[in-house]
Amino acid sequence: MIWGLTNSSPRYICCVLQPVCCFTSNEYSSVLRSQCHQRNNCCKRSFKIIILCQRKTPGEIVFVGAGPGEKKWLTWAAVKELRKAQVVLYDHLVDKEILKLCNKDCEQFEVGKAIHCSEDTRVLQKDIHNLLEHYYRRGKYIIRLKGGDPGIFGRLAEEIDHIKSFGGKYRLVPGISSVFAAPLLAGIPLTHKNWSKSLTITTGHDLSQLDFKLLAKSETLVFVMATRNLSEIAQRLIENGKSSDTPAAVIYNAGMFNQQEVFGTLKEWASRELKVQFQPGTVVVGKIV
Amino acid sequence: MIWGLTNSSPRYICCVLQPVCCFTSNEYSSVLRSQCHQRNNCCKRSFKIIILCQRKTPGEIVFVGAGPGEKKWLTWAAVKELRKAQVVLYDHLVDKEILKLCNKDCEQFEVGKAIHCSEDTRVLQKDIHNLLEHYYRRGKYIIRLKGGDPGIFGRLAEEIDHIKSFGGKYRLVPGISSVFAAPLLAGIPLTHKNWSKSLTITTGHDLSQLDFKLLAKSETLVFVMATRNLSEIAQRLIENGKSSDTPAAVIYNAGMFNQQEVFGTLKEWASRELKVQFQPGTVVVGKIV
Repeated sequence: MIWGLTNSSPRYICCVLQPVCCFTSNEYSSVLRSQCHQRNNCCKRSFKIIILCQRKTPGEIVFVGAGPGEKKWLTWAAVKELRKAQVVLYDHLVDKEILKLCNKDCEQFEVGKAIHCSEDTRVLQKDIHNLLEHYYRRGKYIIRLKGGDPGIFGRLAEEIDHIKSFGGKYRLVPGISSVFAAPLLAGIPLTHKNWSKSLTITTGHDLSQLDFKLLAKSETLVFVMATRNLSEIAQRLIENGKSSDTPAAVIYNAGMFNQQEVFGTLKEWASRELKVQFQPGTVVVGKIV
Repeated sequence: MIWGLTNSSPRYICCVLQPVCCFTSNEYSSVLRSQCHQRNNCCKRSFKIIILCQRKTPGEIVFVGAGPGEKKWLTWAAVKELRKAQVVLYDHLVDKEILKLCNKDCEQFEVGKAIHCSEDTRVLQKDIHNLLEHYYRRGKYIIRLKGGDPGIFGRLAEEIDHIKSFGGKYRLVPGISSVFAAPLLAGIPLTHKNWSKSLTITTGHDLSQLDFKLLAKSETLVFVMATRNLSEIAQRLIENGKSSDTPAAVIYNAGMFNQQEVFGTLKEWASRELKVQFQPGTVVVGKIV
């Protein structure tokens, strides 16, 4: 996996294996030397290239929400930011049409942690932190483009913590989250004055982290990244007291031309075999469905 | 309050007091006659004017999210809809700059249920239903412009139910909800892989409807329409087991030039006297603050 090649002086080019590291120019020579001595075959293998240098003028980092899928869900503010971008670090699910809004000389890196990727090719959170720091130190205008809204299940807090650790500055531009847009575009209003006065949002990625006793008591539930575990989620909600007749819907590819909705009850989902379990989807549970 | 005056023939004009009614032209004369006989002084008092007629070609109703405040948070899809609008029914909090995107001959009605309005001048949900039906039957392209996202605490379900009751058709265009945007623009990422794996969203408008035992157990809470009741909310969360040191923030005028954030703990909010309690605001409670 090649991270980036720029026109900078070749003496700043360093080949390093995982993890990608960012060094100041002072640190450069010794680290490079030790890395290359350790890894004689580094240039022949799948590798990451990173340009090392340090500028006096710091850059700017803007977290931008790309919305759920197609370009038409971008806000004016997001479009304005993308047109100014010199570097874009974008998530796996961001529609590639959106990237065409950037200037031709804008450097673009996919940094999504796609579930289907193997450990070797998957981008690590640390890589993203390093790239942010690296281009910030080079004085670049960096857009960290996240699917949906940057603040919702996108590791924003960790990226902000890293930026703060090196004294960087950042701004935040909201986007439409699929948490709300997926149900809406499927015709499901998430709130209702009689039977959906509150709603709970969580991920269905790692079920060991969830308190199903509490979740089962919520009027309306939205699970993101839950399609793989849907059958188990349904089962555990029933076990914890949620009526097995509670309606539940899965919305695949929300906001895209190929959006698809599948309706059922918890009882049905608990026993249903999903053909498209690896497709990204949003799950809504409650009377409101 | 005057609802609308168009260039239609004057024989279709009817003055009615609350509620606004929509009639077909056949029903018109008898209803008008009975209303005017009952209310001799109807034209002298605050009244609502509605144009009555029925067209064969039905209209189109599009629910559009205006986002949190300023125009720059509108999506491309929302802008496209507003430019096509013949009638716009907009909420109280929608920025008036957004309405300038519409054509000059587009009829615009504020139908927001502003809390500070008296019972006499406040728009009723039934009025909105009737206006939607009325203009739909006249074949108009109607935008129902809601602050934030149409599906979140905006009585969308009720309006859809009414549209279905007269066989109307509608579409849904999501917007950025202040539920997510207010915390984000205040620098608070709502989720964190360690201490905010799920979040609960509710209104703080009518506390008798809320299960505080359940709410107190949630990692992260977002209350909308809660600034008036903030002190009581904080108190009841503490009573139900939430640590009194839990941080809580209020974000006023999210997404506007005059956005303002006030930080504190539940203990502080429980005893704090709010100077700006009638200003719209979003309340976030949890370690994430």
